[in-house]
Amino acid sequence: MRKFLLIHIFLIAFPFILINANQHPCIFLTPKAVKEIKASLGKYPTFDKSYYELKAIADKALTEPIIVPIPHDGGGGYTHEKHKNNYYQMNACGILYQITGKKEYAEFVKNMLLKYAEIYPGLGMHPMTISNVRGKLFWQSLNDAVWLFHTSNAYDCVYNYISKSDRQKIENQLLLPEAEFLSNGNAANYETFNKMHNHGTWSQSAVGMTGFVLNNKDLIDRALYGSKKDGKTGFISQLNVLFSPDGYFTEGPYYQRYSIWPFMTFAQVIQNNKPELKIFEYRDSILLKAVNTLIQCSYNGEIFYMNDALQKTFKTQEIVYAVDIAYKNNPSNKQLLDIANQQQSFTVTGEGLATAKALKKQKVIDSFKYKSSLFRDGEKGENGGIAILRTGEGDKQTCLTLKATSHGLSHGHYDKLTIALYDNGHSILSDYGAARFLNIEPKSGGGYTTENHSWAQQTIAHNTVTVDQTSDFQGNFNLSSKHHSDIQYFDNENPKIQVISASENNAYKNVKMQRTTALIKVDELEFPVILDLFRLKSDSLHIYDYPFYYQGQMVSTNFDYTKVTSTMKAMGSNFGYQHLWLEATAKSTKPTADFTWYNENRFYSITTTTDKNTDIFLTRLGANDPDFNLRNEAGIMFRQNNASNHTFATVIEPHGLYDLNREITSGFTSNIENIEIIFDNDEFTAMKITSVNAKKYLFVTVNKDFDKNKTRKILLSNYPVSFTGNYYFKEI
Amino acid sequence: MRKFLLIHIFLIAFPFILINANQHPCIFLTPKAVKEIKASLGKYPTFDKSYYELKAIADKALTEPIIVPIPHDGGGGYTHEKHKNNYYQMNACGILYQITGKKEYAEFVKNMLLKYAEIYPGLGMHPMTISNVRGKLFWQSLNDAVWLFHTSNAYDCVYNYISKSDRQKIENQLLLPEAEFLSNGNAANYETFNKMHNHGTWSQSAVGMTGFVLNNKDLIDRALYGSKKDGKTGFISQLNVLFSPDGYFTEGPYYQRYSIWPFMTFAQVIQNNKPELKIFEYRDSILLKAVNTLIQCSYNGEIFYMNDALQKTFKTQEIVYAVDIAYKNNPSNKQLLDIANQQQSFTVTGEGLATAKALKKQKVIDSFKYKSSLFRDGEKGENGGIAILRTGEGDKQTCLTLKATSHGLSHGHYDKLTIALYDNGHSILSDYGAARFLNIEPKSGGGYTTENHSWAQQTIAHNTVTVDQTSDFQGNFNLSSKHHSDIQYFDNENPKIQVISASENNAYKNVKMQRTTALIKVDELEFPVILDLFRLKSDSLHIYDYPFYYQGQMVSTNFDYTKVTSTMKAMGSNFGYQHLWLEATAKSTKPTADFTWYNENRFYSITTTTDKNTDIFLTRLGANDPDFNLRNEAGIMFRQNNASNHTFATVIEPHGLYDLNREITSGFTSNIENIEIIFDNDEFTAMKITSVNAKKYLFVTVNKDFDKNKTRKILLSNYPVSFTGNYYFKEI
Repeated sequence: MRKFLLIHIFLIAFPFILINANQHPCIFLTPKAVKEIKASLGKYPTFDKSYYELKAIADKALTEPIIVPIPHDGGGGYTHEKHKNNYYQMNACGILYQITGKKEYAEFVKNMLLKYAEIYPGLGMHPMTISNVRGKLFWQSLNDAVWLFHTSNAYDCVYNYISKSDRQKIENQLLLPEAEFLSNGNAANYETFNKMHNHGTWSQSAVGMTGFVLNNKDLIDRALYGSKKDGKTGFISQLNVLFSPDGYFTEGPYYQRYSIWPFMTFAQVIQNNKPELKIFEYRDSILLKAVNTLIQCSYNGEIFYMNDALQKTFKTQEIVYAVDIAYKNNPSNKQLLDIANQQQSFTVTGEGLATAKALKKQKVIDSFKYKSSLFRDGEKGENGGIAILRTGEGDKQTCLTLKATSHGLSHGHYDKLTIALYDNGHSILSDYGAARFLNIEPKSGGGYTTENHSWAQQTIAHNTVTVDQTSDFQGNFNLSSKHHSDIQYFDNENPKIQVISASENNAYKNVKMQRTTALIKVDELEFPVILDLFRLKSDSLHIYDYPFYYQGQMVSTNFDYTKVTSTMKAMGSNFGYQHLWLEATAKSTKPTADFTWYNENRFYSITTTTDKNTDIFLTRLGANDPDFNLRNEAGIMFRQNNASNHTFATVIEPHGLYDLNREITSGFTSNIENIEIIFDNDEFTAMKITSVNAKKYLFVTVNKDFDKNKTRKILLSNYPVSFTGNYYFKEI
Repeated sequence: MRKFLLIHIFLIAFPFILINANQHPCIFLTPKAVKEIKASLGKYPTFDKSYYELKAIADKALTEPIIVPIPHDGGGGYTHEKHKNNYYQMNACGILYQITGKKEYAEFVKNMLLKYAEIYPGLGMHPMTISNVRGKLFWQSLNDAVWLFHTSNAYDCVYNYISKSDRQKIENQLLLPEAEFLSNGNAANYETFNKMHNHGTWSQSAVGMTGFVLNNKDLIDRALYGSKKDGKTGFISQLNVLFSPDGYFTEGPYYQRYSIWPFMTFAQVIQNNKPELKIFEYRDSILLKAVNTLIQCSYNGEIFYMNDALQKTFKTQEIVYAVDIAYKNNPSNKQLLDIANQQQSFTVTGEGLATAKALKKQKVIDSFKYKSSLFRDGEKGENGGIAILRTGEGDKQTCLTLKATSHGLSHGHYDKLTIALYDNGHSILSDYGAARFLNIEPKSGGGYTTENHSWAQQTIAHNTVTVDQTSDFQGNFNLSSKHHSDIQYFDNENPKIQVISASENNAYKNVKMQRTTALIKVDELEFPVILDLFRLKSDSLHIYDYPFYYQGQMVSTNFDYTKVTSTMKAMGSNFGYQHLWLEATAKSTKPTADFTWYNENRFYSITTTTDKNTDIFLTRLGANDPDFNLRNEAGIMFRQNNASNHTFATVIEPHGLYDLNREITSGFTSNIENIEIIFDNDEFTAMKITSVNAKKYLFVTVNKDFDKNKTRKILLSNYPVSFTGNYYFKEI
């Protein structure tokens, strides 16, 4: 009784120290969460499902021999996948040990850690040399960090089970050396650990989590405040720098998804161990904001393709972690439950349980509110941004994105002012994303293929203008990294007329670019349409290429084209053009060219202004691709020759119905009869659109002095227009 | 009272005549069904849904002006879609009038019919001349028949509402002339009406249904027994000829789906009006059998691609009709409820209601039992057939088809012994199907495009062997129609080893072909594998091309290849080769060539025997395609040069996992180390397969004297094998 009292007093007086010094698990899983999970099993079927999935991994591990191979292979190769599987198994067994108390799970983790501890001191650098930042267990140290991230958690779960002597072996021969390797092992690792980049986030989180398990203040401080512990680098400074005030991550949505995993997990670890830092409230709750922003950067449950990106859905484990942790730390954000409901998967921790409980309790699940948004880029929100225009509901919503950001670090692409269009549940005008086959070893060791640089990163791979067949900033990373596009205005106040306007003045010498894109709903048309004004300004002659990469099957054009028959040639020799097969060429004899295709059960048309200097090219990706690394996607490119100042004026229109099951077709031709640019100077650009029903519409954008409260006057061929704000749209 | 008694007696004495003469609706919808539907609304939510969908069509019709344009356009064009919409609207309004009694619906049908009656006498042949059998309302008379099929039903529903004088106008100026036109309007129509072809089925059904509505014995007899009423043509004789004893329709599954609509609907009309014919019991219940066979010819809810075929799912209205009518006429076939449950749609007739009621009553819905099946082709089942080998459950099942039928009438392709593979919910090795954009007018008027003949029908478009770069039967329809392949044996007794063997001896002069394909599950491999022995026999030298058209992204090969870089050429100039871009060429330096790709989250490998005379080509569809009508699909082709007798021995293997969401990859290389043909003569072929785990398997097929009870002995390089039956498979 006396002893109990003593402990009790001690707990009250030094709760923080005690937890760290003597109590495990202490980092991600907590004793309180373990107790709650034990009490909850059987009550929340979807949480049970996640638990039993984890248990299946752990139980399978127990039936297998423990193999810790000497590292050898690249991504997707045997030793790569084995070490990955090992940390997943250790993590699963660690958590299962906590919840079931079954010693076999702990024994597994202990034995595997001891095997690692045996080989680790003898390991040199990984034999594959395709990364600048090689790991020891993996070809890149990033994967070593992910290994330690999971392994520190597993060790935390079985800490109390392992004898002191074994712990010393594991800590001294494995965990501490690996944490030291990641943060300070060589110049490249040191640089990565202190870098503003998702690799830094992983490295800091792994080292920091190890620090908390071992109660090692040195490691914790390095992780939080950088190697010099001055706060100029490290996790906290990443929260300041890598996210914009709107929660946009500068590398783009795909890497925001990847980095949100260590960001949120390590933040939860910090919250559990240093609650005084109020990490989730830090910088106006930047992490919670970042989770919402990430989800906004998606269509139909898939994260947008921008910069280096592959297909990723809400069901990825990193977004499960992010949603559960975000919900636990702000249960008022009920719309996260919509995402959790789509995921049908939870972290087997207190955060997952809390989310599952709330989801079960919620009778009616509020839909996540996808909004038209501008997410500014840059620490201070001054480096351009991405705009998302949306209209309609649910998975059939129309969504247009415009990218006008900074370069996006090493995963950025040379594409300023790119648009992408999603409609009817599908990608319609696409950003190619990355050329990579993640973890498929025969494909460049699972890393980015050479075509990622030669095609995917180049300007011509995107729905934006390439000048003189040369990429933005001539494809020079350092140069591109110094600049960013600018948002001119963003206006979503009228849900029927939403406009984004952005400029890029540095990508090309002597050519200034601005793009104004509007998502508009007019009564006469069934679906919303996109108006696009791409204005180029120069005092010298250039070639402007304005391509669209469409998903679907070509249907018709209003111009004659010549398609190659038995011989096909690549379009160029560099800046991505070498990868485009030239399938057909055309000249438009009308003032507008019209191109129609279908995707699933809907037709789409691009109608754009053309003149005698316009060439039209129909392209197919895949030339100069010796290893079959590219997808053979189709495009249409409008080329303006011998142009100094030039404006492309375009309408992109979903229309009609193609129902193959009911055998019903309607509206397979564009409703746009004509487009005219009726005014175009540095102050205003005006386009007049005539529909096939002879209705006429006028769209005017302001090109400078952006001010939503300013009154404008303009005389358009005897038709005076006055308006307040940055744009004008009206049926005339 | 006296009067009532008289009628009553009359009813008993002449029930059949009276119903036809005075009671409507009498053909598809019946007064009894109307009464039941009225009483059931609100009780069966899925049936209600179908009812309200039909009501929405009818209600929309009431808000629109009645427009009956002079026919002008092709499929998908304005007048085409308008006349189609008109018959759907009349049909909907007719049924709605019966159920609600609301006169506006009947008035709509009457007024539209009167408008048709006004223009019909003045109509010549449809102005478009792309069909040999032109209609009056549509570019092909087939669509006229579909129009009359729906319109006769609508007229039946509102018959009693319309005044006698209006009826005379409608009957004499529209329905009778159109029925006469279809059955006897000109030589082409007469031929079609009496043809063994789905166009004949439509024509007979439309004319017959009109006959029953008008109580016109002449039309009824023409429909049932042909123009000469001798039973040599007409609906009844089609039941004898177009279906094999197994319920397989000779044009293939796609047109079985299309023709099942008039077959089942007109059969129900016959059942309602001439129950004494016992039409659903006719020829061992051939129609009910045909519905089951049609559903067997599908994977994951999609009808197989064979011959001319587009994507069609169970949700098409024709399969809704077929399932509801089949279920009503044989309620013991409970597995049809699984299909109805997937459809979630019902005919708004007694048949749909009966199915919906049964579905609601059924607590546990039995899954439709997809079986490994051989469906024989030909009136007597003697014209070859298609084999379907299946293993596994549900939508992840592995399914292999082999086509060894007769030509398949005008929609047949020149592909003997073609295989197709489905796995993991997807098409893996595909039959191209048809080159057609149904109802998209700018695409060849919505009809088959020229590439349907120049590519899709040619042998090289299929996963089978082309000899000397020339199609089967030199692509000659009349010649091909005279012959058929033969089934040698089909054995599905052992669910772990299922084998189909077929031969083709007429497609090429001097070359005899036989293909033996097995779907096998062995313990060491996670997924079932396909063994393929394609044996060619000739006494002269030939070139044998053995292609596979794969869906997915190429991963790796075990041979070096040279891929074109900046110039790509078509492979040939005719028989389909002109449409293949030659992307890469290779020689295999090993005894087997291995090609790996992935589709969704699984890898696939083709491993095949090669020698110094084998060329390997990697191809991409799309050359000589001036109108962008082809899908750019990828293929691999093994070419055996200077060969007389030659056998291709191949293993097709699903393997591994590619989970991009969890970032887990495993088993990305084939498990097949080697394949050897260790014995090959006219009696036996034996292949030895060695796995990467050094396990060895022997597969022997009998090449003649097929008999499942016969005992065989063969000495394979000092290894004596004896077995009973047609094949032998064992780990050795």
